[in-house]
Amino acid sequence: MVQNKSIIFLKHPTEFPVVGEHFEVQTKELNVTLAPSDVLVKNLFISLDPYMRGRMRNTDKSYTAGFQLGHVLNGGGVSEVIESKNDAFPVGTIVTGFVGWEQFSHVPGAQGLRALPNARTSPIPLSAYIGVLGMPGMTASLKIIGQPKKGETIFISAAAGAVGQLVGQMAKQQGLRVIGSVGRDDKVDYLINELKFDAAFNYKKGNILENLKSLAPEGIDIYYENVGGETLEAALEVMNTHGRVIACGMISQYNTQTPYGIRNLTHVVGKRITIRGFIVSDFAAECGADFARDVGSWLVKGEIIYKEDITEGIENAPDAFIGMLNGRNFGKAVVKIADL
Amino acid sequence: MVQNKSIIFLKHPTEFPVVGEHFEVQTKELNVTLAPSDVLVKNLFISLDPYMRGRMRNTDKSYTAGFQLGHVLNGGGVSEVIESKNDAFPVGTIVTGFVGWEQFSHVPGAQGLRALPNARTSPIPLSAYIGVLGMPGMTASLKIIGQPKKGETIFISAAAGAVGQLVGQMAKQQGLRVIGSVGRDDKVDYLINELKFDAAFNYKKGNILENLKSLAPEGIDIYYENVGGETLEAALEVMNTHGRVIACGMISQYNTQTPYGIRNLTHVVGKRITIRGFIVSDFAAECGADFARDVGSWLVKGEIIYKEDITEGIENAPDAFIGMLNGRNFGKAVVKIADL
Ligand SMILES: NC(=O)c1ccc[n+]([C@@H]2O[C@H](COP(=O)([O-])OP(=O)(O)OC[C@H]3O[C@@H](n4cnc5c(N)ncnc54)[C@H](OP(=O)(O)O)[C@@H]3O)[C@@H](O)[C@H]2O)c1
Ligand SMILES: NC(=O)c1ccc[n+]([C@@H]2O[C@H](COP(=O)([O-])OP(=O)(O)OC[C@H]3O[C@@H](n4cnc5c(N)ncnc54)[C@H](OP(=O)(O)O)[C@@H]3O)[C@@H](O)[C@H]2O)c1
Repeated sequence: MVQNKSIIFLKHPTEFPVVGEHFEVQTKELNVTLAPSDVLVKNLFISLDPYMRGRMRNTDKSYTAGFQLGHVLNGGGVSEVIESKNDAFPVGTIVTGFVGWEQFSHVPGAQGLRALPNARTSPIPLSAYIGVLGMPGMTASLKIIGQPKKGETIFISAAAGAVGQLVGQMAKQQGLRVIGSVGRDDKVDYLINELKFDAAFNYKKGNILENLKSLAPEGIDIYYENVGGETLEAALEVMNTHGRVIACGMISQYNTQTPYGIRNLTHVVGKRITIRGFIVSDFAAECGADFARDVGSWLVKGEIIYKEDITEGIENAPDAFIGMLNGRNFGKAVVKIADL
Repeated sequence: MVQNKSIIFLKHPTEFPVVGEHFEVQTKELNVTLAPSDVLVKNLFISLDPYMRGRMRNTDKSYTAGFQLGHVLNGGGVSEVIESKNDAFPVGTIVTGFVGWEQFSHVPGAQGLRALPNARTSPIPLSAYIGVLGMPGMTASLKIIGQPKKGETIFISAAAGAVGQLVGQMAKQQGLRVIGSVGRDDKVDYLINELKFDAAFNYKKGNILENLKSLAPEGIDIYYENVGGETLEAALEVMNTHGRVIACGMISQYNTQTPYGIRNLTHVVGKRITIRGFIVSDFAAECGADFARDVGSWLVKGEIIYKEDITEGIENAPDAFIGMLNGRNFGKAVVKIADL
C-alpha cells in the first residue's frame, strides 16, 4: 500500500509553535475512493506563509478559518493529478490551489484547484506558482493601496521575504526610491547588490529609527508594512505629510503574547497619514488577470528576479515553517515534497 | 489711552499648561498706526481649540506653526472692524479669521479675515462662526473620509464636544446608528436626550471595551476618533471588517509625556481597516461652500442644534483653555471678549 506522510495540527500555540507540541508528522495508509468530480493529487510543492500562524490561533476571529486540531494543516500548493473523476482535471494535469501538508491529497470536487496548462513546458519553475506568480506575488503587485508617485520614497520591512523582495523591485520599476529592512547582513547585501535597492539596513543592528533617519533624510512617503511593532513606530516618526502605510502584515506580533504598543499614532492626524490594511484575496477578481500577465512577462524577460528558500521533504515542513516565522528563510519559503 | 488686555505665551508646556507658568494676562496701551490695507478690530469672541495645544509644543513639526514665546497667542475669532485703511473692510464690518487672544488686534493687510456681511441681521449668533459654522463645524461635515453607508454603526469619542456633537447629528441624518463616549454623566444625558444618539457611555466609568461591546453588539463600522489611547484600542477591537477610523484628533495624548501604546494594530490587516488622518484646512477649498450652505440651512431650520460653553472675559481665557483640554467644557469652548 502507498503511505501518506502528513503534518497534523496538535495544539494552539500562543508564542512560537514547537515541533512535536503543536504539530507533528504522521504517516497513514493512503486509502481513497473518489466520488464523481473528485481528484487525487500528488503534492509537489507547498507554500509556507505567515498568515498560517494566524490560523493556528485559538479564535474564530482570524480572517481565514482556523486549522482544526487533529487534522492535516493545509495551504497553497502545486500538485499533479494522479487519479481523477473530474473531466476538467485529467490525470497528469498540473494544478495549484489549496491542498494538505501531505504527500497526497484527496480533493473533493477538485474544489479550489486551478489547472496550469502550460506548466510542463514553460521555463517557469513550478514553485513559482505559489511564490512570485502566486499569492505573495499578487500581494506585492497591488498598487491601488499605496498610490505610489514617481520620485517618492518607499520603505519596505521584511524586504528580502516572499512579498518584500517583489514590492521592492516593482517600486524601482515605478521610479521610487526604495529602502528595505531585514534581519540579516546577507539579506542586506542581497537587497543592495541583486535587487538594486537604494538603501537597506539590518534592524537587529543599531536603532531602527536612527537607521531610517540616516537612510531617508528626506522622510518616507510610503511604508510597506510587513512587521509592525517598533518598525512601524519608527516609520510613522519619519513619515512625510500625506504618507501612506500599506498594512500588509505585522509578523513581529504573531508569536507573542505581549504585543508592542505603538505610541506615536498622533502623527496620523498631524501628518494626514492613511494606514490601510488589506487581504490579497479581496483583490483577486479585480487584479488577478493583470497581475498574471504583467508579472509573468517581467519574469520571462528577466525584469524581475526572485529568491526561494526550498526545504526538501514534507517531514521537514514544521521546522521550515518555524524558520520562516523567525527569519531563517532567505526568500519565499516553500517545501518540496516530490519531483514531477 | 485705551488699554489692551492680552494673553502672552511664556513657556512650552510638556503636560497640562498652567496659568501663570505657561501663559499669563498682560495689559498694554493700545498704540497702533495703520498702514494702507490694515485694519484694527475689536475682538468679540475667540475660539479655544485642542490643536492650539499642539502649537504650544517646543517643536517645529506641528502641522501649524508654533506659538512664539513672549508673544500674544492667536486663533480663530469673530471681531468688529473699528478702524480701517482697507476698503474691503470698512469700519463696522463683522469679520471672522485669525486674531490675537486680546481685546484689540491690529491686522496688517486684513490678512486672513473674512467679512460676514449678514452677521448683524442674521438670527445666527456671532459665536457660531467659530463653532458650528466655523472650523469645528466644517471638520464634522467632511463625509469623504469615512464614506458612511446607511445602516452602519458609527462610534464617536469626545462626542459632546465642538466637533463630536455635530458629527453625531449628521450621522443620524445619514441613517447611521450612533454611539458616543464622553467623560461626564450630564454629557451622556445630553447625547441621548437632546442629540438623539442611539447609545452613549461615560468612559471614566467601567471598562471602555466592555461598554463598547455591550452597546455595539453588532460591532462598529466607523470610528470617529477624537481622543486616541485606550479608546482607540477598544474601537479597533470591536471594529467590523472594512471598518474606517476617521482620525480627527487624539486629545488624550496631547498633555502627557508618556503616550499610550496601541497594542492591537494587527486588526488593521486582518479586518482590512483604513485609518485616515486629516486636517480640515486641506478641504476648505473643496468643501467650504457646500458646508456653509448645508449647515447654515440646517441651523436655520433647527435640524441641527449645538451647545456652546462660553467663558466671559479675555482674562479667563487661559483657565478656560485648560478646562477645554480636560473636559470641563460642555460644548464648543469660546471666550466672549466684548459685546458688539
Ligand atoms: N495582507 C495579505 O494579504 C498578505 C499576503 C501575504 C503576506 N502578508 C504578510 O506579509 C508579510 C511578509 O510575508 P512573506 O510571505 O513575504 O514572508 P517572508 O517575508 O518571506 O518571511 C517572514 C519574514 O519576516 C521576518 N520577520 C520575522 N519576525 C520578525 C520580527 N520580529 N521583526 C521583523 N521581521 C521579522 C523574517 O525576515 P528577517 O530576516 O528580515 O527578520 C522572515 O523571513 C507578513 O507579515 C505576512 O503576514 C500579507
Ligand atoms: N483634524 C482636524 O482638522 C481637527 C479639527 C478640529 C478638531 N480636531 C480634533 O477633534 C477633537 C475634538 O476637538 P473639539 O474642538 O471638538 O474639542 P471638544 O471636544 O469640544 O473639547 C475637548 C474634549 O476632549 C475630551 N477629552 C479631554 N481629555 C480627554 C481624555 N484624556 N480622554 C478622552 N476625552 C478627553 C473632553 O471631553 P470629555 O468630557 O468627553 O472628556 C473635552 O471636552 C480633538 O482631538 C481635536 O484635536 C481636529
